[in-house]
Amino acid sequence: MNLLLLHPDDFINRDQVQIRGRRLRHINSVLKAKTGDFLKAGLLDGKIGRAEVLSLNREVADLRIELTEPPPPPLALKLILALPRPKMLRRILQASTSLGIKQIHLIGSWRVEKSYWQSPFLEPDKIHEQLILGLEQAIDTQLPEVHLHPYFKPFVEDRLDAIAGDTTRLVAHPVAAHSLPATPLTGLTLAIGPEGGFIPYEIEKLAELGFAAASLGPRILTVEVAVSSLISRLASNLESSSQNTHTCDP
Amino acid sequence: MNLLLLHPDDFINRDQVQIRGRRLRHINSVLKAKTGDFLKAGLLDGKIGRAEVLSLNREVADLRIELTEPPPPPLALKLILALPRPKMLRRILQASTSLGIKQIHLIGSWRVEKSYWQSPFLEPDKIHEQLILGLEQAIDTQLPEVHLHPYFKPFVEDRLDAIAGDTTRLVAHPVAAHSLPATPLTGLTLAIGPEGGFIPYEIEKLAELGFAAASLGPRILTVEVAVSSLISRLASNLESSSQNTHTCDP
Repeated sequence: MNLLLLHPDDFINRDQVQIRGRRLRHINSVLKAKTGDFLKAGLLDGKIGRAEVLSLNREVADLRIELTEPPPPPLALKLILALPRPKMLRRILQASTSLGIKQIHLIGSWRVEKSYWQSPFLEPDKIHEQLILGLEQAIDTQLPEVHLHPYFKPFVEDRLDAIAGDTTRLVAHPVAAHSLPATPLTGLTLAIGPEGGFIPYEIEKLAELGFAAASLGPRILTVEVAVSSLISRLASNLESSSQNTHTCDP
Repeated sequence: MNLLLLHPDDFINRDQVQIRGRRLRHINSVLKAKTGDFLKAGLLDGKIGRAEVLSLNREVADLRIELTEPPPPPLALKLILALPRPKMLRRILQASTSLGIKQIHLIGSWRVEKSYWQSPFLEPDKIHEQLILGLEQAIDTQLPEVHLHPYFKPFVEDRLDAIAGDTTRLVAHPVAAHSLPATPLTGLTLAIGPEGGFIPYEIEKLAELGFAAASLGPRILTVEVAVSSLISRLASNLESSSQNTHTCDP
């Protein structure tokens, strides 16, 4: 928890909050904060700044809040991800959020076990919990959206084109002949398959919508490592273009 | 396990192996292989090819081996990593191995808990186990080296210069003013600190050896996500230069 992430209902007046529960325990036992200390704080979907500890005990902390800075810019990358195994899902949601992703679509695919859709980790409050942990880790406040689409075909045929819009469309496919683009991108929709990959039919359906298949290289990664790797690898192209600071020796 | 990784003592003659234990269980219950099936196989520190199932039961599998292809080229990136929490260490070793790293130095640092060095996960056979899992995942055969250096100062003063050699020297530092290099690199030594980062003294000591501090961006990542992200982000620069296929729109 690198950021004390505040909710509107933490506020007892315009610039003061009361914190209990998990966040208080973290303030006490990990940050070991004392009266007069300043903590980094931010308002969910709002600005970032600092919180001064006014008083603190095991029950409740009172803090004065001053929020002045915008959160880091979102990554212009929409993630389409075949639903991973539940135990991996939590870490992947946290990692993707910490990397700046703001829109995640979890989808069905031939190699996604049907039973995964019954996982309690897919309940909205469980997903929310992982997103919050990702924001607290990354010092960000903008909550990602997560959408569930259990059926591949209607998702791709009826929804995906509108989601991808005018972004570059890419599907990570370990056996693809092409490698990832090295040129600046202004926006990207990235599809990542399940363990074992999308099946040829799925790659074809994605290709019909303009999703180019590209490989990260000769090695096969777990979905968890692949997600972080692909986002980071492609974020540098997105950052380069959006910040217009791309340097390159021809 | 995307690769059946073989050891010299699996061989009962020039082109035939007998497999028992964990790998046999995987062949039976995950791959559900039958007599006559071909599996992807490779020899530890050797070539990759295929294994034909000659016979198979719950006790032992006999396979005929034909190894013809070299393993994927190693990544020219030496990783210097402040020893992470033991439960993270296993996943980080697997992930780094699957990403093609061949030399890992786990080092002490001010913010590394001393107790971590007593973890059973640091025993050579436990480390070996994680490296093997990473190779099996990535379809690679070249075992990484892992070295332990519990004391930061003697490591940096007496060992690091020889390890880094003529490679580019970089330390990931979240608060650094510079971003990661975007230009091709021929070899890299990358230092990554613990949760909370290296302390200023440590950054100075690394700077004396030419390690430039660079930041991945405004977000703070867990060490686990940072390792995969940094390796993948920088691997594209290394691959570009080594394969001489770097494309760039100025």
